[in-house]
Amino acid sequence: MANNTTATLTILSQREGIDLGDFQRDAKDFGLPENVTLRIEQVTLFGGKQHGSRLILLTVGATTLRVIPTRGMGILDAIRGGVRFGWDSPVKEVVHPSFINQEASGGCGWLDGFNEMMVRCGYQWSGHPGEDRGEFLTLHGRIQNTPADEIVLEVDQQPPYAVRLRGRVDEKRFKFTNFELQTSLTLTPSSPYIEVQDTLTNLSSYDNTCQAIYHNNFGEPILGQGARLHVTGKKVAPFNDYAAAGLDSWAQMPAPTPNFDEMVFNIESLADEQGMAYALLESSSQAEGIEVAYQVASLPVLTIWKNVDTEEQGYVVGIEPGTSYAYNRRHQWDLGLVPTIKAKESKQFYVRFGLFTTEEEVQASKQYIANVQDGTPLIVESAPTVRINEQ
Amino acid sequence: MANNTTATLTILSQREGIDLGDFQRDAKDFGLPENVTLRIEQVTLFGGKQHGSRLILLTVGATTLRVIPTRGMGILDAIRGGVRFGWDSPVKEVVHPSFINQEASGGCGWLDGFNEMMVRCGYQWSGHPGEDRGEFLTLHGRIQNTPADEIVLEVDQQPPYAVRLRGRVDEKRFKFTNFELQTSLTLTPSSPYIEVQDTLTNLSSYDNTCQAIYHNNFGEPILGQGARLHVTGKKVAPFNDYAAAGLDSWAQMPAPTPNFDEMVFNIESLADEQGMAYALLESSSQAEGIEVAYQVASLPVLTIWKNVDTEEQGYVVGIEPGTSYAYNRRHQWDLGLVPTIKAKESKQFYVRFGLFTTEEEVQASKQYIANVQDGTPLIVESAPTVRINEQ
Amino acid sequence: MANNTTATLTILSQREGIDLGDFQRDAKDFGLPENVTLRIEQVTLFGGKQHGSRLILLTVGATTLRVIPTRGMGILDAIRGGVRFGWDSPVKEVVHPSFINQEASGGCGWLDGFNEMMVRCGYQWSGHPGEDRGEFLTLHGRIQNTPADEIVLEVDQQPPYAVRLRGRVDEKRFKFTNFELQTSLTLTPSSPYIEVQDTLTNLSSYDNTCQAIYHNNFGEPILGQGARLHVTGKKVAPFNDYAAAGLDSWAQMPAPTPNFDEMVFNIESLADEQGMAYALLESSSQAEGIEVAYQVASLPVLTIWKNVDTEEQGYVVGIEPGTSYAYNRRHQWDLGLVPTIKAKESKQFYVRFGLFTTEEEVQASKQYIANVQDGTPLIVESAPTVRINEQ
Repeated sequence: MANNTTATLTILSQREGIDLGDFQRDAKDFGLPENVTLRIEQVTLFGGKQHGSRLILLTVGATTLRVIPTRGMGILDAIRGGVRFGWDSPVKEVVHPSFINQEASGGCGWLDGFNEMMVRCGYQWSGHPGEDRGEFLTLHGRIQNTPADEIVLEVDQQPPYAVRLRGRVDEKRFKFTNFELQTSLTLTPSSPYIEVQDTLTNLSSYDNTCQAIYHNNFGEPILGQGARLHVTGKKVAPFNDYAAAGLDSWAQMPAPTPNFDEMVFNIESLADEQGMAYALLESSSQAEGIEVAYQVASLPVLTIWKNVDTEEQGYVVGIEPGTSYAYNRRHQWDLGLVPTIKAKESKQFYVRFGLFTTEEEVQASKQYIANVQDGTPLIVESAPTVRINEQ
Repeated sequence: MANNTTATLTILSQREGIDLGDFQRDAKDFGLPENVTLRIEQVTLFGGKQHGSRLILLTVGATTLRVIPTRGMGILDAIRGGVRFGWDSPVKEVVHPSFINQEASGGCGWLDGFNEMMVRCGYQWSGHPGEDRGEFLTLHGRIQNTPADEIVLEVDQQPPYAVRLRGRVDEKRFKFTNFELQTSLTLTPSSPYIEVQDTLTNLSSYDNTCQAIYHNNFGEPILGQGARLHVTGKKVAPFNDYAAAGLDSWAQMPAPTPNFDEMVFNIESLADEQGMAYALLESSSQAEGIEVAYQVASLPVLTIWKNVDTEEQGYVVGIEPGTSYAYNRRHQWDLGLVPTIKAKESKQFYVRFGLFTTEEEVQASKQYIANVQDGTPLIVESAPTVRINEQ
Repeated sequence: MANNTTATLTILSQREGIDLGDFQRDAKDFGLPENVTLRIEQVTLFGGKQHGSRLILLTVGATTLRVIPTRGMGILDAIRGGVRFGWDSPVKEVVHPSFINQEASGGCGWLDGFNEMMVRCGYQWSGHPGEDRGEFLTLHGRIQNTPADEIVLEVDQQPPYAVRLRGRVDEKRFKFTNFELQTSLTLTPSSPYIEVQDTLTNLSSYDNTCQAIYHNNFGEPILGQGARLHVTGKKVAPFNDYAAAGLDSWAQMPAPTPNFDEMVFNIESLADEQGMAYALLESSSQAEGIEVAYQVASLPVLTIWKNVDTEEQGYVVGIEPGTSYAYNRRHQWDLGLVPTIKAKESKQFYVRFGLFTTEEEVQASKQYIANVQDGTPLIVESAPTVRINEQ
């Protein structure tokens, strides 16, 4: 299970006939030095609608991730240095896709399982449910409600001992979709970052539409009254009239607010010289923060989903880089936000989470964002990006 | 597993990491005296669409229940003293919810698994499928096609040795529904009764609609030519024009009748001093009967579903206390039958089944119903409660 | 497990409490002589959307079949003498029905799992999705996405040692459908044939509609440039205007052709004296071929689905005997192709696959087809059978 430089553990592979089921391994199983913290465990859930769901608990250095292989390798949550990154959805179960009907309630069945820190939306379409060009598109596409296969852990044998968790997720419908997604999560013991490197391949001989939103969601303790967003952006605009009314304070977070529901803001990203854009949600104490960095080449826009309603309702902010905004696809053609994935083309999506648990980390991120933004005004547009009657 | 007064057996609990799988226990495992009959067994089903379904067989005294934890703790059937309470649906399998698509065939997919003696319908809505206020509501709501968690058996250690089977069933959709149902079935060795005590809690910070119908269904041998219904009621009215034509004999049961299809009758319940209303279906011999008693405070109306078609079609009568009638919700606002469950409110639903297997029991029930009704006329309204073009 | 003449192995039976799971048996387990080749193996799949799917690998003589009990006893593919009969769909997984939502994308969710050599379409309806008489019908009906029960292997103890694999598949919806399908696949060690003998019983006391299409699909190596179809038929007509444009060469197969999409041809079958009609797809070398023979009494028409697009798109030809063509049911009433299955009636469907791997076999089939056709012209109608705006 090791070559000279990388140890590999196959967790699930129909092709190789491997299904480890519930297991655990630690650093020494991968031949790592004793001072390197690495632990992986898989548990199969049962009871209610989580019957058959699996969780991979991966601890690398000070970070513990909970990944859901049965839900497209989504990230349930992360803990670093005692700080939890994620949110408290009213949906408590890790719902198995066999209990999800995405067509339900006008295409909103996706909401029955929505509780993760990172949810991939896509990839043939994402966004709100509804009809576009004769097709009914369900909320946020199909990928998250698809179990992965070919799940592998790779552990570098030399410093900095990077650890990669990979998995393949298919999105297929004969004549319609022939996509294969290779997901990858990378952590390094000494680092506060989680890197998401996804490769989407259109195996078809025909071009197709391709939309992705990385629906990253954060609640307490990062979110709270006085928490603040910092972004690198060219323009911010409200999603609809309701958000327009809250445009002045789009980046300031209130305490849980009854009847707030959600305000959504659309941001045109501004990249640094490496092509990366940044959004930081810092806690009110400025001692913790979550930084979402993303490659603008494939994820040109950012949606801020300010859902600061009551705790029971899901007090949460989404920081969501995407190919597109959250509108139904029919509204995005005119915005130029329905990219094509060509026949045989592979697209890369890169998102990096900074799990910041010290003032220094937060301060450095804020400074970096200011530097990137320096000299570029963030234009505030008062009119919604799209005029729609629905939300 | 026992305190001073109650022994507890956890059957399924993700929280506690317990899943007993296939097991059996009997009275002595719970420290009961030898003359107390108690047996519990769980079996996992396989084959066809029942793959993964589970049955809990619970024998308490002379009664054996078959409960379906994977279908919201519904009751498949009951046998007392050799008499079966339940019915013979054309659906023979105990269908696992992962094979049910409630949106299918215009919202009628629920029918693919319908064969139980007691089916809970609800709780955000119940009734016929269709659009109401911009939402498409599937037939009879979602709760029955939801597997339970936190399943526990409690056995009282002192006479009368009451036995309670509990389970939790969630009904959740982010932004839409945040309900938790605590179900409880209570049996006592010396008694012919099964008590259903359900507590529905709206965990949300917002009010919601709440409809429930306890869809209790009985076929042979209780049902048969000459079987008769006795109810405590203020008013009976036909559901539609077709039922209006059979209003005269609404309480008399014919033999299986080709092309009868179904007649539905709506009853406004009449409660006794304890707030309970009653419906008794007595067999033609008057030697067996099923009594459905229910608390009118939360279940004010009763639907009689007279589906006395051929045996192959499902020869069955439903005795269905509810918050509402069986119409789509859009028809029930004007009737005042779309109750609200307030933020954080818990509602209690209480239904009691009397499994009567002697003339004395049947006679006593009939007499009691007559006493409750005494002096109150059951008004027969010839016009359907709601004028609709559909059924 | 044996009587005088037939050995029986129950593979799955809820009724008998038998689930063999992953197993294998061979000729000597069935008491057969050593020179008879028989092997059966079952494997449970995992990973992605094939979690829980099962495959039965059945080798009889020179033929190995892969049957999918969890998908209605469909045939994934067959290999005879090193030649594979089947096709390469972009859908690679053997998708478990719990991951299929047939209502998805306007009733096209069936396509998410479509990759078999033989797919049963039916039985209450088959054909394209859409509304008919107030019912929304999903693509090709429900049977293929239904797991089987009562799966049994029968092995004759005397020459020619016929082997039958049986399974029961239910199609049920309370008030709507009460069908039971008994499937049977028969192979004989010395023979190139697979016989499909299905019995569909309407258990209801009422008549119902009944449509079936045996969607048999073949790609390379049988299909290829220069492969040719030979049929016994009275008439061939295009399905729509697009197919009309390719009518001249309906029976000739091109190499994989970008943007070909599919042309569909409707054939009125011509039977021999035994009531059988025939379609042969011979490879360009004429050294291999697949013959589909079928009983015209219950399967009067044949659909040729010429989907000779690129390999990635699924380069495949369907040879599909049916009660009906592939149109939505609403178009077939006027064609007289919506048969009734009467109350309690059983219908037999018989399809036989000839897996031909020698020139002699191919030649003999071609000659037989010519003999049957002899003197009967195959009328070529240039107008589509049905004029529709959709495909």
